[in-house]
This record gives sequence, structure tokens and C-alpha cells, in this order.
Amino acid sequence: MEGHPLTTAAEPSTVDPAAVVDLLGVLAYAELTAFDRLAEDARLAPTLEGRAALARMAAAEITHHERLSARLRELGVAPADAMAPFVAPLDAFHDSTRAGTWLEGLVKAFVGDGLATDFYREVAAFLPAEDRDLVLEVLEDSGHADFAVREVRAAIVADRAVAGRLALWARRLVGEALTQSQAVIAERDGLGELLITGSGSLNGVAELIGRITAGHTVRMQALGLNP
Amino acid sequence: MEGHPLTTAAEPSTVDPAAVVDLLGVLAYAELTAFDRLAEDARLAPTLEGRAALARMAAAEITHHERLSARLRELGVAPADAMAPFVAPLDAFHDSTRAGTWLEGLVKAFVGDGLATDFYREVAAFLPAEDRDLVLEVLEDSGHADFAVREVRAAIVADRAVAGRLALWARRLVGEALTQSQAVIAERDGLGELLITGSGSLNGVAELIGRITAGHTVRMQALGLNP
Repeated sequence: MEGHPLTTAAEPSTVDPAAVVDLLGVLAYAELTAFDRLAEDARLAPTLEGRAALARMAAAEITHHERLSARLRELGVAPADAMAPFVAPLDAFHDSTRAGTWLEGLVKAFVGDGLATDFYREVAAFLPAEDRDLVLEVLEDSGHADFAVREVRAAIVADRAVAGRLALWARRLVGEALTQSQAVIAERDGLGELLITGSGSLNGVAELIGRITAGHTVRMQALGLNP
Repeated sequence: MEGHPLTTAAEPSTVDPAAVVDLLGVLAYAELTAFDRLAEDARLAPTLEGRAALARMAAAEITHHERLSARLRELGVAPADAMAPFVAPLDAFHDSTRAGTWLEGLVKAFVGDGLATDFYREVAAFLPAEDRDLVLEVLEDSGHADFAVREVRAAIVADRAVAGRLALWARRLVGEALTQSQAVIAERDGLGELLITGSGSLNGVAELIGRITAGHTVRMQALGLNP
């Protein structure tokens, strides 16, 4: 987050502890669902190597989940309690965007997780240092991105029609992600407050959304898809 | 394996390298399927804590899979090639014994993996030291056993009828496991040879089967089920 314009916008002391627990909680549950999804996608892999690679990435998500759970316990919160408010919206997102093919799974992981990661990174910038560092660390890519880009590009080279179908799929993912994240923020006052206070103003929030959109465009182009 | 009667029965130099690759290959694929199954069972967990616990165990299997794959590469064998002969029988076993409930999944993991682990441990005793140590290490329980015993016993206390149903389920598991392991040994000459040479005689094989059966009985009793 070097040079991030918002890193110092919020005084750590002004951060609502409930918002910190919310962010750690939503991330802990997101890692658990990422594990599930990667484990499911592993079964769609066309080769044993691909299957093992995805299983390895799934295992990495659990390490992240563990780190977040440990921090929640340190803060005196049961991880299951911190995760509970986010189970319904995250499950709704995944249920409505269940990948039907190996490539859809890879696009979902790359594009969907990319969006989520950028969003969490932005929010993390408003947290006290210790929690910010933890969040940035668990958001580090576990090698999945390169893997997805390589596989999707190879599939598009082999069959151009794939690109159009996957671009449509990515657009559906973004729509569902927006619906569910709006539902979460509307429900969790602390998180919404953190976003606005941290950004400094609604204008700051608009800039944040602009940065996330730009990142999304870069990822779509990396896959060889029309944003 | 202290005091194991067969540890020194075979001279390492007499071991067919193809049998070593077979054992590492079947184990590597077994770990991959164990990962799958634990990941699937995690979704059946009645609590977020149970779900996270199973996901953690699934992740541990992948670490084991990685160690075995690394050793196979050291031996100059592509892990996917070493695993290939065992994909069909192991998949057949899992497809024919798909757990329908959380408790069935736990019994399958404890009873089924217990049987398999005992069998692999017996065979490992016939291997050269380096591979024997690796196999024994990846067969170490990742905490799943205690977890399964605790959950199943608690469920039986809550409802006695559960014990009868789960005992039947365990018997079906054993039957399917025998069918598939016989198919594997019939197909892989090196493994069958290793079993007989290592045991010293057909009588030795019978003793080996006796020890595995005894271990199974102990596990069923630990769950509170009629063997």
C-alpha cells in the first residue's frame, strides 16, 4: 500500500472496534468460502496437475482463515460470531454464481476475488496498523492469479468464441458482487461508517470505487476479455 | 512402528523400485481424494467451527500430497503418472460410499482412512528407510481422529438409534474398501509382490490382515459402534 493516498486519512483512534471485527469477520468467512469454491473447482480440473494446483491454493486460504480467526480470538470475539452476519450474503453470491466449467471457475476466482481483494485492501487502509498489516498479508495472492491468467488465455487462443462467453460471465459476477456488497454495507453500520470516514467524504468513496473499477478493467484485459 | 515384527523382514535392496513408485503414487492420490472428501464434508458441518475444523484437516492432506509429489519428482517420476493407475479404483470407492450426512462423513474418514492408513503402514515397513519414513510421516493423523470420535460419540449419546445405522454404514465401507484394494493389488504386480516378499510368506500376509482387522475393531469400539 506504499503511496496509497488514503493510508493516513483516518486516525486509528477514531476507528470503531466493531468495524474492525466486521472486516476481520467478513474476511474470515470469505476465506472459508474461497476454500470451498477452490476445492469444488479442483474437481473440475482437466488434469491431475491442475487439480493439485487448485487444492494447494484452497489450502492456502485456510491458513489465512486461521490467521484471521486467531486475531479475532485475541480481540475477545469468537470467530463464528464475527463471521455470522456475512454467511447469508456471501453464500447468496456464491450460490448465484456457481461456476459450471473449469474456465468459469478460474474467471470467477480471478475477477471476483480480485474485486473483493481490492475492496478489502481499500478498507484495510483505514484500520490501525496491526490489523491493517494482517489484512494486507492474508490478501496476498497465493499464485492463483497467474495460474488463472495462463489457463484462460490458452483456452481463448484455442477457441476465440470462449472469450465472448467468459466476458458475459464476468459481467454477471460483477453485478452479483455489487448487489451483495451493497446489502452488507447497508446492514453493517460500522463498515459503512468506516468507508465514509476513512475516505474523508462521499467524494472520497467515489474515488475509491473508481480505483476498484480501474483494477477490474486491468484484470479483464490480462485475461484477454472485453471489460 | 516400534517393535513392528516385519520392519526388517525385507532387505531394502530387494525392493522393486516400481513398487515404491506405486505406493507413493497411490498415497499421493489418496491424499488428493481425502482433501476432496474433507472439503465436501466441511460443507455438511452443522457449525462454522466444525466447518473450519474439517477445512483445516483437508489443508493438511494437501501438505502430505505435496511431500509425496516432491519425492516422486526426486525419483524422476511425474506425480500425475504415478497417480494415474489409482484414479479409477479410488474414485470408484469414493463414488460408491458418498457420505449423505455429517456423521457418515466422520465415520468414513475415521474408519475408512484408519483401515487404509494401517494397510499403508504395513507396506511401508518393507520400503527402504527414506521412503518408509516419508510414508509414516504423511500417515500421521492430522487431528481428525479425535474430532470424529468426539462428534460421533456425542451423537450416539443424544440418539441411540444412530449407532445401529452408523455400524451398518461402516460395514458397507469395509466391504467396498476390500473390493477396491483387491482390484488394485491384482493390477499392480509390484505392490502384490512387495506384500508377499515383505511378509515373508502367505502366512505373513494373513497375519498382516489379522493386525489390520484388529485395528478396525478397536476403532469401531472407540466410536461406540458394534464392529
